[in-house]
Amino acid sequence: MISVEEARAALLALAAPLEIEESAFRDAAGRGLARDMPAPRPQPPYAASAKDGYAGAETAPPPGRVFDVVGTSAAGHSFAGTLREGEAVRIFTGAPVPEGARHILIQEDVDRQGDRIVVGPAPDGAAYVRPPGGDFDTGFVLSGGRVLRPQDIALLGAMGHGTIPVRRRPIVAILSTGDELRAPGDTLDPGTIFASNGDALAALIEGWGATARRLPLVGDNEESLALAFGLAQDADLLLTAGGASVGEHDLVAPAAQTAGFELRFQKVAMRPGKPLMAGQKPGQVMVGLPGNPVSAFVCALVFVQPMIARFLGLPDRDLTEERILGAPVGANGPRMHYMRAQTTPDGLSRVADRQDSSLLSVLAASDHLVIRPPHDPPRDAGTRIRTLALPR
Amino acid sequence: MISVEEARAALLALAAPLEIEESAFRDAAGRGLARDMPAPRPQPPYAASAKDGYAGAETAPPPGRVFDVVGTSAAGHSFAGTLREGEAVRIFTGAPVPEGARHILIQEDVDRQGDRIVVGPAPDGAAYVRPPGGDFDTGFVLSGGRVLRPQDIALLGAMGHGTIPVRRRPIVAILSTGDELRAPGDTLDPGTIFASNGDALAALIEGWGATARRLPLVGDNEESLALAFGLAQDADLLLTAGGASVGEHDLVAPAAQTAGFELRFQKVAMRPGKPLMAGQKPGQVMVGLPGNPVSAFVCALVFVQPMIARFLGLPDRDLTEERILGAPVGANGPRMHYMRAQTTPDGLSRVADRQDSSLLSVLAASDHLVIRPPHDPPRDAGTRIRTLALPR
Repeated sequence: MISVEEARAALLALAAPLEIEESAFRDAAGRGLARDMPAPRPQPPYAASAKDGYAGAETAPPPGRVFDVVGTSAAGHSFAGTLREGEAVRIFTGAPVPEGARHILIQEDVDRQGDRIVVGPAPDGAAYVRPPGGDFDTGFVLSGGRVLRPQDIALLGAMGHGTIPVRRRPIVAILSTGDELRAPGDTLDPGTIFASNGDALAALIEGWGATARRLPLVGDNEESLALAFGLAQDADLLLTAGGASVGEHDLVAPAAQTAGFELRFQKVAMRPGKPLMAGQKPGQVMVGLPGNPVSAFVCALVFVQPMIARFLGLPDRDLTEERILGAPVGANGPRMHYMRAQTTPDGLSRVADRQDSSLLSVLAASDHLVIRPPHDPPRDAGTRIRTLALPR
Repeated sequence: MISVEEARAALLALAAPLEIEESAFRDAAGRGLARDMPAPRPQPPYAASAKDGYAGAETAPPPGRVFDVVGTSAAGHSFAGTLREGEAVRIFTGAPVPEGARHILIQEDVDRQGDRIVVGPAPDGAAYVRPPGGDFDTGFVLSGGRVLRPQDIALLGAMGHGTIPVRRRPIVAILSTGDELRAPGDTLDPGTIFASNGDALAALIEGWGATARRLPLVGDNEESLALAFGLAQDADLLLTAGGASVGEHDLVAPAAQTAGFELRFQKVAMRPGKPLMAGQKPGQVMVGLPGNPVSAFVCALVFVQPMIARFLGLPDRDLTEERILGAPVGANGPRMHYMRAQTTPDGLSRVADRQDSSLLSVLAASDHLVIRPPHDPPRDAGTRIRTLALPR
């Protein structure tokens, strides 16, 4: 039996950033920027007006000053000439400020009279000119390794990049095994239950930026498992759920070995989720999750999320948070325990009474997990504890 | 000029929950559950073993007790008979507990000798039986109106539902207008800039669960605008960016009216983002965002996010958070100001020095917005303030 930290490190070591591809902007959000992206030109590329008004050939002209309006500068339609003393052009927000202009008179501050404008009684003193490169200059860099948020995508668009270099999304094949499993929507024979792991795992990993590929439900026999392993051959990561224990009906380990995987370990000192398996063969990693739905879910949060981040070229981040216990908890046993818990109305953490690893209703009623280290003593209300948020 | 609250209420009133459709599990995450979902049967459907071991016909048998092993109960393969006194069956985790069994002896606690087992010196006293309905009973309800998280999807799968009733995803057409705009990846003529709004808005609204449909870049002329409005006809929501001010080159309002929209208001007392327009015609809502990229982005966060939640049948939630200022800020003017800000290493809120609405680099370097009410006085470091998180 190895510790959670050892298992996490061993699994992370199996994953490596995937190859870089050029993504369309519309498929880039949530992915990792693979390279530093320098701005090839300044933004704005020209001095631009910050207001609708008039660009005049004088800095902060006083009330009563008169300008001849000699043209217009609108977005996409610059004024080509150079302003001389006493001249102004009509100008709109974002439009290029003509040569010779010193100041934007906002339109509320002038009185237009035919081809002339007269500065009003209390003109705004600000120039309202956005200098070239005022947002970013040539060579400004959006650094790689970050998760691309919509605001980063806006910035890369403004730089003029046509595509965005990102790591390819990992393909994650999901294989649920067990003779007792029936697909949701099917009918239950006596002694069978509905398979819920595959859909939950697919939702989790797609939320983390991977592409999920569901494999058919597989019974507890070598032939079906061999077939399913074959169907998963193009996946970067194969997740199995079920059959990862060492009971007599647990056939995933031998099937994985037959399929060419070198297996690394089989038990992790955690609750829920003790039986966990990792394997590797050229071009593919395998993680064998427990069949218990809550155990599979928690193991995915703890182990699979960081692997997917690694595949996507993202930094390994500590996603745990500190919270304060709203009610006491008893002593923990020898395994790291991820306890389902709910935030109370006053923001404290309240651990659910029932923690059996089969209870999905308790998982769905929780919004975070309280992390109890091995042999953690009883803790009183008010204790600061580490937690892991459940997906929102 | 109307207030942010008035504008938000008016826009929300334009959106209504879309029709209910049955979603496959794989497309349900992040969407709103449209109806209460009752469990049609208990889970587990039968008393199930919580451990690998032996199900014996005696509660907490003492050390040395001997049982005849008369069969096996494995997941998907129940033991059909009824246990009599002195009998046990081999049983695996999750498998049905046979009639007549009282207790699961975990395998570590027994010594198997041929067809018999002998209870070891210090057996675990727990029964390790999961009662039928122990997770949820018939009639247990996952209530509607919630955002479906992976853990909810697991629960609905375990109930046996084959599809999930959700509100249809709104189709949001995105139209960027301006003669100065060139597509990212294109080349810049003098006086032109790259359009960055469309990609950022698409990333935002897809993150909120809508389907984005990008329309071609449109110049400042009535013909192109009319064509684009025509292309957007099947959208539930049409977002325009640019041309929403009342300058001479702002043609969106008349084009919207020509396309049949009844317009509601045109100016909101906020920074960034003053020019904002809303319109409605049968089956379609329109929101005219400012062309300025930061203004469009902030207006989308403040106004479009709640509209999309409404389309998806989700509750209107206050997403603002309280934070503590890490540095003083000056007095605010007459408009609500959403100031770009960054979290300091010690968790405080630090407002960026430059707040001009053209600065995408400042937006990308921020992780939240500090919300300053109209006429908010200067605030010292240490003041508690409301903030709105930027997408992560």
